[in-house]
Amino acid sequence: MNITGIREKTVSLASGLRNAGIAYDAMTASAVVVETDDSDLVGLGFDSVGRYGHGALLRERFIPRLLDAAPGALLDPDGLIDPAAAWRAMMANEKPGGHGERAGAVGVLDMALWDLRARQRGAPAWRTIADYFGTSGAPAVAVYGTGGHYGADAADTGPLRATLTDAHARGFRTFKIKIGGAPLATDLARIEAALDIAGPGALALDTNGVWEPATAAEWLVALADYDIAWIEEPVSPLDYAGLAAIAGRFPVPIGTGENLFSCDDARNLERHGGLRPDRDWLQFDISLSYGLPEFVRIVDCFASKGWSARRFAPHAGHVLALHTVAALGLGMAEVTLDAALPIGGLPGGAPVEDGRVTLPDAPGFGIEELPALHACFADLLA
Amino acid sequence: MNITGIREKTVSLASGLRNAGIAYDAMTASAVVVETDDSDLVGLGFDSVGRYGHGALLRERFIPRLLDAAPGALLDPDGLIDPAAAWRAMMANEKPGGHGERAGAVGVLDMALWDLRARQRGAPAWRTIADYFGTSGAPAVAVYGTGGHYGADAADTGPLRATLTDAHARGFRTFKIKIGGAPLATDLARIEAALDIAGPGALALDTNGVWEPATAAEWLVALADYDIAWIEEPVSPLDYAGLAAIAGRFPVPIGTGENLFSCDDARNLERHGGLRPDRDWLQFDISLSYGLPEFVRIVDCFASKGWSARRFAPHAGHVLALHTVAALGLGMAEVTLDAALPIGGLPGGAPVEDGRVTLPDAPGFGIEELPALHACFADLLA
Repeated sequence: MNITGIREKTVSLASGLRNAGIAYDAMTASAVVVETDDSDLVGLGFDSVGRYGHGALLRERFIPRLLDAAPGALLDPDGLIDPAAAWRAMMANEKPGGHGERAGAVGVLDMALWDLRARQRGAPAWRTIADYFGTSGAPAVAVYGTGGHYGADAADTGPLRATLTDAHARGFRTFKIKIGGAPLATDLARIEAALDIAGPGALALDTNGVWEPATAAEWLVALADYDIAWIEEPVSPLDYAGLAAIAGRFPVPIGTGENLFSCDDARNLERHGGLRPDRDWLQFDISLSYGLPEFVRIVDCFASKGWSARRFAPHAGHVLALHTVAALGLGMAEVTLDAALPIGGLPGGAPVEDGRVTLPDAPGFGIEELPALHACFADLLA
Repeated sequence: MNITGIREKTVSLASGLRNAGIAYDAMTASAVVVETDDSDLVGLGFDSVGRYGHGALLRERFIPRLLDAAPGALLDPDGLIDPAAAWRAMMANEKPGGHGERAGAVGVLDMALWDLRARQRGAPAWRTIADYFGTSGAPAVAVYGTGGHYGADAADTGPLRATLTDAHARGFRTFKIKIGGAPLATDLARIEAALDIAGPGALALDTNGVWEPATAAEWLVALADYDIAWIEEPVSPLDYAGLAAIAGRFPVPIGTGENLFSCDDARNLERHGGLRPDRDWLQFDISLSYGLPEFVRIVDCFASKGWSARRFAPHAGHVLALHTVAALGLGMAEVTLDAALPIGGLPGGAPVEDGRVTLPDAPGFGIEELPALHACFADLLA
């Protein structure tokens, strides 16, 4: 099996939604297809959300390095594509640090290679990933549903109630909404509306890292009597000392990591962020952080300091994250509640039962079972 | 004055050179031209070196935001382009963290805007920058010369000796060479050859962040009897704890920062890196770190903790860095000794006198006075 070509395209994820930090009206993402000399065998990869597409980096730097590799250099002794070998080829001649856009370019290609390897094995991706890293893996995954983005009228709690009521009826038991993008009183009304539906300890609040530490402290004082599942990115993601101050003062669990894109950065969070292994959530985004080879290094880094793999809840309602949670026994996966978005929904409409979903047996990441996502690949697969 | 268009192109910086971490045979950089409704008035910007060109990010995200700004929104009350206003426009809808490629895209545009503002004032960029930030500024700048990259035969000290001898004859008094990409004995021979020419306390060694902390310690023990000006990036740039351990154990000055691209990251270096304000060098690359508005925030961050602006020696032999050192009273600027490289040489062939150079009075950054660099803009200015 040889890789014969790699195609990519930029997909629009434009929507009218916003969070406390950014609007999504110009958001894009990359879709990639890895082609082989077996016309039935391809690997599909899709970007995670929020950092824009990676098309030019893919075309100018990372795809050429894969295509220039010697025949067989990217395969393991069994003739299967070896994502770690491909990772080393992709990262040749890259200076250290500056883990930004390129981390997402490498990650979307890495995803396509795992999809390819799994299809070579005729297996779902989670099982292939588990076999590769020597974990047991299991197809049943705890999930939480994310909704409640700000729409045109932040004070209108109707859409938020509808989204969460529907999600609860569908079987979700943990929920996350956006806060921090409206005045405190408006957001408290939204939080109370959501808590009515979610119940105690089942609602997380995501502020997308826009608060200064003093503002975060004010809000957390105001929220002290609410039973919140976790507060997400309560300060700027790189402000480790600010995070440690929050963790030292407030008992509410913290979630962070979605805007840290490497093991270098993860290690700094572990060393300097003051997080608590008994309650906090580590949300590194696999696709945006150089993919699985790097992500496993991140998990190992925290494990070496006593953290359970169950504290990982990778960012983004992304099928790569779903399979990785299944493969490595992580804590839970995020699901975007709006199934009309390319990155929304669950594969094959798999039902959520009391907050857990079982991944179908489809080969690879099963992108064929996600119609809105699969539609993004139509041109590339033609 | 209104901006009517922004053009960019990718320039090849391919060379046979390498440092301990990367080879430059596919290196690229971006050149940008900001056009206005005054056909004689343009702003020129050029990328720094080592992180590849930023063309697609410029075209897809940052140039459109500038061109979409309301008329006058990017101007100050005197009708001059206001780089800080432009910076805010460019960074709309960008999530926090992940300071990688986009930091360089914003930085190269920022440089073009300072060039434009200075040309509107009919002044050299350093004076315009000093006026804007309220510093006195002066055109005489301390410089050091960087050469001694690895060529085809690392053990051949001939080219290294020739480069440094020539530089010394030209007036340089501080020099930097690359190490860490050859066995210790080979590098010691190169260091001794260089020290013969540079003299004590005048030679810096750049290892480009490839060493593990244990390796760094071994080398620094081996180098303990040499009078080295500074050791650059002795550990991975984001390994703040590793850096603090080096700084705590070895008296040799340390230089770092060229692979940290934001005030977020700079603040973490200040808090966790254990650096010493009496001897260490801060080498943030202005162009790669979102440009001058962010760079001044970085300087202020360190100043608030007692660091002198004289400890800043911005990375890259880049005319933006030269002018910023002049404007803000920073410590010194790097000069790439190979004048054939686009980013090499000094404006107008300005002479180096006992380690200092005086910037000519040319308007803006004076790119017309740097023939190899100006040639990169030929298509864009046609």
